[in-house]
Amino acid sequence: MADTREMGLVVVGAGGRMGQALIRAIHATPGLCLSGAVERTGSPLIGRDASAHAGLEASGIKITDDPLPAFAAAQGVLDFTTPAATVEFAGYAAQAGIAHIIGTTGCSDEDEVRIKAAARHAPIVKSGNMSLGVNLLAGLVKKAAEALPAEDFDIEILEMHHRHKVDAPSGTALLLGAAAAEGREINLSENSVRSRDGHTGARQTGTIGFATLRGGSVVGDHSVILAGTGERITLSHQAEDRTIFARGAVRAALWAHGRKPGLYSMLDVLGLN
Amino acid sequence: MADTREMGLVVVGAGGRMGQALIRAIHATPGLCLSGAVERTGSPLIGRDASAHAGLEASGIKITDDPLPAFAAAQGVLDFTTPAATVEFAGYAAQAGIAHIIGTTGCSDEDEVRIKAAARHAPIVKSGNMSLGVNLLAGLVKKAAEALPAEDFDIEILEMHHRHKVDAPSGTALLLGAAAAEGREINLSENSVRSRDGHTGARQTGTIGFATLRGGSVVGDHSVILAGTGERITLSHQAEDRTIFARGAVRAALWAHGRKPGLYSMLDVLGLN
Amino acid sequence: MADTREMGLVVVGAGGRMGQALIRAIHATPGLCLSGAVERTGSPLIGRDASAHAGLEASGIKITDDPLPAFAAAQGVLDFTTPAATVEFAGYAAQAGIAHIIGTTGCSDEDEVRIKAAARHAPIVKSGNMSLGVNLLAGLVKKAAEALPAEDFDIEILEMHHRHKVDAPSGTALLLGAAAAEGREINLSENSVRSRDGHTGARQTGTIGFATLRGGSVVGDHSVILAGTGERITLSHQAEDRTIFARGAVRAALWAHGRKPGLYSMLDVLGLN
Amino acid sequence: MADTREMGLVVVGAGGRMGQALIRAIHATPGLCLSGAVERTGSPLIGRDASAHAGLEASGIKITDDPLPAFAAAQGVLDFTTPAATVEFAGYAAQAGIAHIIGTTGCSDEDEVRIKAAARHAPIVKSGNMSLGVNLLAGLVKKAAEALPAEDFDIEILEMHHRHKVDAPSGTALLLGAAAAEGREINLSENSVRSRDGHTGARQTGTIGFATLRGGSVVGDHSVILAGTGERITLSHQAEDRTIFARGAVRAALWAHGRKPGLYSMLDVLGLN
Repeated sequence: MADTREMGLVVVGAGGRMGQALIRAIHATPGLCLSGAVERTGSPLIGRDASAHAGLEASGIKITDDPLPAFAAAQGVLDFTTPAATVEFAGYAAQAGIAHIIGTTGCSDEDEVRIKAAARHAPIVKSGNMSLGVNLLAGLVKKAAEALPAEDFDIEILEMHHRHKVDAPSGTALLLGAAAAEGREINLSENSVRSRDGHTGARQTGTIGFATLRGGSVVGDHSVILAGTGERITLSHQAEDRTIFARGAVRAALWAHGRKPGLYSMLDVLGLN
Repeated sequence: MADTREMGLVVVGAGGRMGQALIRAIHATPGLCLSGAVERTGSPLIGRDASAHAGLEASGIKITDDPLPAFAAAQGVLDFTTPAATVEFAGYAAQAGIAHIIGTTGCSDEDEVRIKAAARHAPIVKSGNMSLGVNLLAGLVKKAAEALPAEDFDIEILEMHHRHKVDAPSGTALLLGAAAAEGREINLSENSVRSRDGHTGARQTGTIGFATLRGGSVVGDHSVILAGTGERITLSHQAEDRTIFARGAVRAALWAHGRKPGLYSMLDVLGLN
Repeated sequence: MADTREMGLVVVGAGGRMGQALIRAIHATPGLCLSGAVERTGSPLIGRDASAHAGLEASGIKITDDPLPAFAAAQGVLDFTTPAATVEFAGYAAQAGIAHIIGTTGCSDEDEVRIKAAARHAPIVKSGNMSLGVNLLAGLVKKAAEALPAEDFDIEILEMHHRHKVDAPSGTALLLGAAAAEGREINLSENSVRSRDGHTGARQTGTIGFATLRGGSVVGDHSVILAGTGERITLSHQAEDRTIFARGAVRAALWAHGRKPGLYSMLDVLGLN
Repeated sequence: MADTREMGLVVVGAGGRMGQALIRAIHATPGLCLSGAVERTGSPLIGRDASAHAGLEASGIKITDDPLPAFAAAQGVLDFTTPAATVEFAGYAAQAGIAHIIGTTGCSDEDEVRIKAAARHAPIVKSGNMSLGVNLLAGLVKKAAEALPAEDFDIEILEMHHRHKVDAPSGTALLLGAAAAEGREINLSENSVRSRDGHTGARQTGTIGFATLRGGSVVGDHSVILAGTGERITLSHQAEDRTIFARGAVRAALWAHGRKPGLYSMLDVLGLN
């Protein structure tokens, strides 16, 4: 089905909102083709044409619940699913020796260890946020945190997401916090203030504060504020729609194609590392 | 000392940052004069010229720790102190039958009862935020919360203050929350989400969320966000310096002068009630 | 085709991006059905199924270039086209005695006169911006401009739109400016500062300033700033997608159905007038 | 008068608002002392104690209209005056071989040539904005403009200042524009869109747009927006008070003390070059 000169990609979680966006991004990108589409066993979508389900013309690629043959026939996998599924897919991708692009969030330390192990056998690009803009922002935040003295500039991270999001702060807020902590050469979790309510006392020098807003249909807004005496710098990112994550994932797949095994980040993809 | 055609005002807490700002605002306002300045017993400032301490030319008004004669000689009191002190001052002002302008925050329900009792004998203007802008904003928030259906528009309140602030959310954030709750005809404390961290679940319809930022020398920023499907309204106030509270208090004093006893708000002063 | 108990609506400009959004909004709204779809003569879309073209299942409503029979069979028209087309459609809707919902911008004074004339025969709802949020914002802006003295509070209007927008400031920015001018009881065009470059001199008291940003895929952001001494109020609206205009238009159609002839605004629809 | 182990500084324009802020910053900084204060001939302030005029205790340094002896006795000059005055002072500082810190804006190309000539004899630090935050921001803007492709990310620069500012866009907005242009390796003046009004046509790829707001007492807000398809990055700076410029100037003076002749920028002072 796939043109053999193109990079064939499997989308896992192909029936969900993000899966559909990934399928549309693959179809829109020269050099890529959809070669497989996977959903969990028992999904009512099994057997449906994956491209038609994503609002495109039918491509003949049917949604399946059997990842192994799909992985065997592909050069890469796009994966925005759940930690448990992602760990399983990392094993299959390692076996097949194909690129695995992971946008899944919420992985435990144990999950990360397994993903790292899989990266010995195939290139994995993993990021808490696949957008070009967020990853550039993280680079700027690190630089700013490095340049401005912690004694005078307090770092705060604000995020807003739609009303359906169930956790706080967002993975991207934590990614930005980690960038700030890296710039300051401190440990994020030991220096985080994750929320404030009641008598908090004065702000402690060197901490990184988080604040979370939820409402409406907001795709994802993030701001990092560096507040000093008499002046403030704010570095922000606004996602207008989810296509930016799909486009970032597709760009990562093209970059990872044929690369040697290893665990990479979007900063590698963007040449910012 | 005071020109008898002018309204003579006592500033309590006269030696602090806010007290000094109040003294400067009185001197800058036609029709008003400083007639007394009170500090707590034991303050090293007792006996100093209050106006000179506020960075102005000496006025001959010495800082005293005895409020009674000061209140007896005045037509009004400006009070940004502590709840305990304010309750005491409210008693003295009631006795003297003079206007009491209260910008003190953090009063308990019991404190409020006592202040209300004092308001039977003298006009009291009390507000969690004395600025013209914040009070107008509260009026707009109420109107917006009324007009936009709770099923589709989620209300979130964000505030940022300097690193020295010890409580969260700010009194002004709560004031804005109360305005939103009033517009929605709901009880604020029963519908507040005061912070978010970890697995929060999806946002509950009809709640009012708060988020707090702390850093640098920020005088006070507040935003009320009404986030619906596909669109967002944000109503914000930024205080650039503390003079706006002093100017609001002075305006309230002029408004309250000679008015009949009662507990008033800045909305009354601004004609927005 | 249409259920006779439903309100049948014609979409003009049915093949464009906005036309498609209107068709999707009609299909998503109980009590409404698509009864006609019009495009300009010569369009390659003539004869195609309008709903299928909008990404939905085919409804049997074919795109036509003959508005008269379509209008005769409908109870209302949704129209986001061009001034010349809108004036023509207003005549046909008046003849048919059906509601005409106009989101077209850029009408000349002469166009407005003709639309007003048509409104003697049928209910017309016309607004420079059909969203619920923008119209509420305009109401708040008017109130704020009324409450805050022009001597101290300067009004500025900022807008940002995507890179393809060809005029500045946006119709919505002007609509917000008109609301501010109404609150101040001044004439907008006599008091506007439409752009600033070079030696402008100090800001003139009482003027309303505009500033325009263009870039990316921004759907439409608007802010009205009231800047005083020491404080600033900002009232903002962000459109995340164009569905808000389609949903507003559909809501206006339901409101106008069976109403007596006249020229109405979204403030009427929202009960804010 | 001056402790000989300290760096003695002359403030020119010592009686103005910025001059006073500079004098307060000198007094607040260990290792610096005020050694001279200059005003223009005919100023009513000649002969007054410069520190007392700045709201501090008298230092014995009288305001003079004769710069030569003041420069001869100093190790540096702080200068936020006018282009003509600055060119003259640069000559005197070159003669005295002392550091000249220039925050003056609006210099012509000819002025710049003369300042460059003076920098052959003494170290000059010149910046359109002396604040730490703005200069860091410029560094980040350059990096972002470099990383994000001009074909997809449009750059817009927004600024807001108080109602008394007489020119647009601000010197700092142009400084940020220059940083963006440098990152893109384009010429700013050939690619600037300085304002928009009326029929502008679609945005041209690769241009840098400016927009200006004026109102209230805003000290200085600047934002650089990089707007792409589906996402937006905003890099902002807010000045809360003018002390940040004075503190930056003082920091520049300490840095320049004893350095070899040359024309430096704040990026050199901050180690960002």
